[in-house]
Formats: sequence, structure tokens, C-alpha cells
Amino acid sequence: MRDKSFLMIPGPTPVPESVLLEIARHPMGHRSSEFSKILESVYSDLKYIFQTSNDVLVYTASGTGAMDAALSNLINEGDKVLSLVIGNFSQRLAKIAKGLGADVEIIEVEPGNAIDPAVLKARLDKDVNKEIKIVTLIQNETSTGVTNDVKTLVSIIKGHGALSVVDGVTSVGAIECKMDEWGIDVLITGSQKGLMIPPGLSFLAASEKAWKVHEQCKRPDFYFNWTTNRKSVRDNSTAFTPAVSLFCGLKVALEMMKEEGLENIVARHTKIASALRAAIKAIGLKLFVTDEKYASNSITAILPPDGISVPDIRKVMKNDYDIVVANGQNALKDKIFRMGTLGFVSERDAITAIGALEATLYKLGHKFTLGSGVATLIEHLNK
Amino acid sequence: MRDKSFLMIPGPTPVPESVLLEIARHPMGHRSSEFSKILESVYSDLKYIFQTSNDVLVYTASGTGAMDAALSNLINEGDKVLSLVIGNFSQRLAKIAKGLGADVEIIEVEPGNAIDPAVLKARLDKDVNKEIKIVTLIQNETSTGVTNDVKTLVSIIKGHGALSVVDGVTSVGAIECKMDEWGIDVLITGSQKGLMIPPGLSFLAASEKAWKVHEQCKRPDFYFNWTTNRKSVRDNSTAFTPAVSLFCGLKVALEMMKEEGLENIVARHTKIASALRAAIKAIGLKLFVTDEKYASNSITAILPPDGISVPDIRKVMKNDYDIVVANGQNALKDKIFRMGTLGFVSERDAITAIGALEATLYKLGHKFTLGSGVATLIEHLNK
Repeated sequence: MRDKSFLMIPGPTPVPESVLLEIARHPMGHRSSEFSKILESVYSDLKYIFQTSNDVLVYTASGTGAMDAALSNLINEGDKVLSLVIGNFSQRLAKIAKGLGADVEIIEVEPGNAIDPAVLKARLDKDVNKEIKIVTLIQNETSTGVTNDVKTLVSIIKGHGALSVVDGVTSVGAIECKMDEWGIDVLITGSQKGLMIPPGLSFLAASEKAWKVHEQCKRPDFYFNWTTNRKSVRDNSTAFTPAVSLFCGLKVALEMMKEEGLENIVARHTKIASALRAAIKAIGLKLFVTDEKYASNSITAILPPDGISVPDIRKVMKNDYDIVVANGQNALKDKIFRMGTLGFVSERDAITAIGALEATLYKLGHKFTLGSGVATLIEHLNK
Repeated sequence: MRDKSFLMIPGPTPVPESVLLEIARHPMGHRSSEFSKILESVYSDLKYIFQTSNDVLVYTASGTGAMDAALSNLINEGDKVLSLVIGNFSQRLAKIAKGLGADVEIIEVEPGNAIDPAVLKARLDKDVNKEIKIVTLIQNETSTGVTNDVKTLVSIIKGHGALSVVDGVTSVGAIECKMDEWGIDVLITGSQKGLMIPPGLSFLAASEKAWKVHEQCKRPDFYFNWTTNRKSVRDNSTAFTPAVSLFCGLKVALEMMKEEGLENIVARHTKIASALRAAIKAIGLKLFVTDEKYASNSITAILPPDGISVPDIRKVMKNDYDIVVANGQNALKDKIFRMGTLGFVSERDAITAIGALEATLYKLGHKFTLGSGVATLIEHLNK
């Protein structure tokens, strides 16, 4: 049905109507006092979302732009980087580091798994000469629905002395992530995820220690340069012409987030995603992430039942119920499908999604107790 | 008056209502077939706007991002670059080249002037060993309202054999710019100018010759990488999550431009800007660009009359008539003000602007024949 489409992918995610209306306004001049006030509000609220006292830089770019910005402001040719890879997006950080001329070592696990803190500790303990300068990792691997134990991993990295660069694209503003308390050195995220606006902006904050390393970076990228961008943040301005419409929408979205409160937002994501997982199991489907401890609260990856294909499930969900769920990526294409419960998502949306998934599986001939998914979901939501 | 603000700055520029409404729609999934169709249409129409058969890459980034993309995909450390500087934005290309480790030589003229083709020719003729690899230049210098004779300059660069990298941010889609016919090697532009959408996207096309040089680039930036971005263009996709809302708006804006026709668009800009310049002179104000041959048809820089300050003019224009005009930049701050007639601008807008400028100057005590600006404007528009 036209205009009825509902996104349950890991981004873009649903955008509140009040944010859309703000984005629809005629763009204002980016050097006006009116826009400067919007920036002041946005920059302040972002510190709350990042749980940091560091400045949060905003790039007009997608999340990958912020990943690039993170590493191209730190790495000199030949620097040793350790990349913890659990899927496509954590792999991308390793690729970027390599492209910058770093000597990249990778610790990789099978998709669906998280990094074992003991493995990281053992590797860093062996680095007695402290050659490893940067460790890259992801909090929430969008391609598999795995959440790393960033708090523990970062504490190990801190113990070693390397910088931690954390991709928080599908976690910040959804899953607990305390930049300052946990001691994360560089944290990035995107706009079309927990922050509830369309894609086009990305965000980066860096610790004092990371800023010192940045000062030694010989060829920081011009557009993503931390120094020039921070100077503008401190002037309630932007270094280059920003996507003003998205900033105006972001201001409203951040106000909504403050009103709900970050702890409540995290609790909402936890409750909805864990209830969703229980419901998925109740209708006889398997979760791709078997260890509940590492199951993401923003993205759930699901195996199709025997004899029913991922494309068929996605097609019926989309054509008959106007719900868009994501396929797997690369080697996982057609092996899993992924449901996002990220950002502007309510209990009602989870009921809708599980109800529609039941209807889809019913049509496709899957044998299960019709209604059991919704029943389990409601029970878990009301535990 | 609330919601009455009208932008006559060099960007963001006015956005048509049908484009704003498109942008206001709920974002769609960027890997959907629906979005792929939008990309197909956008990529095809951009070739028409760029007057090229080369692929046009689209970055989710502001214009400076595309400037960065142009040079970071070509330059290796130590490469010799000649930068033709006529103001802040052409200066920026030189800065980016330096940041990439290039050996940058600058030919600079006083603000308000264009590059003399003879000076460029003399310099390139001296480069008998063909050491200069790239020449950077701007078509329309936003900070001063000067338009270089790109056709002639590029033909000289072509004769030498270096690559021409042209900043067309405030010219493409407004001022005549024929990439293939003129032999431009790299051409970039932004979204919030001639293309009539809000800021957040930027564009780059490169000649076959430039692509060959790119292949030799040792460390192209990851996010802006030409190769990965072109591959996605050819798949009617994007390398990374794009600003989907802006792309949807862009599709509509490009359709409007095709309907009007590029030649008609250029003629409209020429007519409105030249009439505006005549009107400015009729009310006793001086143009910053004295040589009409180099006067920009998208931005007009104006000197305030004796005894009246630029901030006062801008203040009355904004507070009493809700028209935003730009100040000068850096050394030109408070020395000139700049009116954009760029993109979605009609004859009616020019009448509005000159009428309001007359009213402003009348209030501020400037002595002139009231009505003479509007009269001259109308006469010139109807020549």
C-alpha cells in the first residue's frame, strides 16, 4: 500500500513526524545566528548521548565517513593497528587502516560471535614493547546482530595503553555506551540509527589522549580534520557547509531523547529486543546469535525455517504487510534476515512485526502454533 | 516575520516546494529497488547537468568534501600542483593539495579579479619538463563573485598536458560549463547551489585521463575513493549509506531542470544577474567586480555607499524585509555584501530584491532616485 512502508532494517530507521516536518522546512543560512543557536543545542545534547565531556564533532557524511575520520586523523604510515573483526562493519575499520598505510593485524571470529576478552588480553600482554598504537572494534556488529562487551574490551586496551577506536554506529543512543566512564578513546556513530533522523550526518568524539595522538598525525584528511572541525564546534559553527535540514531535524530528535532519558531509551531497546528474541524462538525459528549475552538489542539476525527462503520471507513481509526487513550481507546473504529494533521503535512496533512475521510464515507453510509468537512477546514485554 | 525568510546568499539557495515535500517523506531503505530506480534517474540526469558522458559520483558530504575527493584521489606526496587562486574557495583547493603532501605553486590575483589566461600560458610554457601534474582552478569564486574563463584556461592546461581540477560549486547548473566539450578533467559541485536542494550532497566527474592518474594514486581516501564510488554508480547503488532524503529531493529538482532545459537555465541566470548589476549601478552603488566580462551570473558582490555600513544594510534587509544577503569573507568582511541569484531564482525575485534594497538604502539615508533601481532592472529584464 502506498506510503505504508515501515522500516525494520538496521538503518535508515523510522523518523518521528515532528522531525520530518522540521527537515521539510526551507533551509536556513548556515552562518546565521538562528542556525548557530540550533548548533549550540545540538552540540550540547550530543555530549549527553555520547556520555562524554569531550566535544562531539558532526560530519555531513554517512557513518563510514566518521569511520574514515576516526582513523585518518590518527594513523601515520607504518603504525601498528590491531583490528577486532566480528563482521563486515568491524572489517571496514581494518580496511580503512590498511588504506592509510598502517600495519594491520586482525583478530577475527566466526560471524555470529563476539570477541573473547581473554583472547584480546593474551594478545596485548604479548605486546611488551607496546608496539600496537590503536585497537579498532565495534560495539554492535550490524551485519550479524552481535554486541561486543565494549566495557571489558576497552578496559583491557586501556591497561595496555593503546588507543581504542569504537564503532558505535548501531549502538550509541540505543545500547548502553558510556564513553568517559568506560574510557573509550574514539567513539563514532551515524544519524539514521539511534538518533532517529535520516542518513547524512555522522558523529565523532575523542578523548584527550586521542587528541594528543592526532597532533602527531602528519596528513589528517582535510574534510574530516579533527582540529578544524573542533574549532567550529567550539564556535557553535561548522567548518564547512553542513546539511542544515538534517541538523534542524536532529535538534528535535535529541530533545525527544532527552525527554525520554538515555537510561529509559536503553531499557526500552533491551526490553523490546529480548521479547522479540523470545517470540522468534516461540514460533520455532532460530536466532543467529546463540549466546544471549552477546545478542544485540538493536538488531536481531534470524535463520529461516527449513524449506522457506529468506527472499520469500522478505517478499511477503514487504508486499503483504509493508514491513521491510534486511537480508544478510555477503556470505550471509539469503542465510539470515535481520530485524532492526533501533531508535524510534515502540512495543506496538514489536507486536506489529511479530504478528506480521507469523502471518508471513503461516502463508509460506511453516508449521507452528499460530499466535504463539505474539503471546510470548506480550508476556515478555510485561514481565 | 516568522517563516518569511528568503535566502539571497550564495548557498543554501531557495528550494522548490515540491522538492521540500519529497525530502519530508519518510526515508526509504537505501538498498531497496525503489531507491535504486531513483538513483538510476539521478545518475543519468547528472550527466546532462555536467554535460559529460563520464559517470558522476555523488558523495554524502558538502562541497568541500568533493574538493577533498577530487585531490585525494589523484595526488601522491611530492606531486607538483599549480593552484590558480582568486579568493577563499580557490585557495581551499591549494590548501587541500598541500595537506596531501603536494608541492604547491600558487598564481594569485587580487580579490575581485580573474585569472589572466596569458599569465597561465606563460607559466605552463616555462614548464618544459612537464613537471606540473595538476592545475586547480575555480569557475565561479563564491567569495568575490568573479567567474573565470574556464573554457580558455582549460584549453591552455590541456595544451600543456596537466590535469585540470575545476571547482564548479556555484557554477554547475547555473553558468555555462561544458565538461566534455571544454575538456575539463575533474569537475565538482554541491547540492545547495544550482541544483536547488538543501546542502548535504556533492558531486564529482572525472575524465578518462584523470581516471588513469587516479589508478596511480597510492593512498586514495576510503570514503571518497573514486573506484569504489564509481562501481556503485554503475550498479545504481551507493558505496555507503547515502542521505536518502536529499537524493529523493534531488530527483525532483533534476526533473525540473531538465524540463526548463540547461540552456534556458543559463540564459535565465545571465539575464537576471546582468539586470541586477545594472540596477545596482543605477542606484549609485559600486560593483566589486569592475570588469563585466568576469562578473558572476550567480553571485554579485556590492560595495556599500559612503557612510552606510554593510552590517546596517544586512540588518535592515533581514529585519524589515526578511531577505538574507551575505557579508564578505575574511579581509572582505564588512567591505562588501553579496547577493546570490543562484538556482531557484526568478525575475520576480530580482524585482523583490532590488525593491527591498532600495527601501533599505532609503531608510539608511542613501541619496538616490527612489525607484531607479527597479526601473532599470525591469528595462534590462525586458531588453
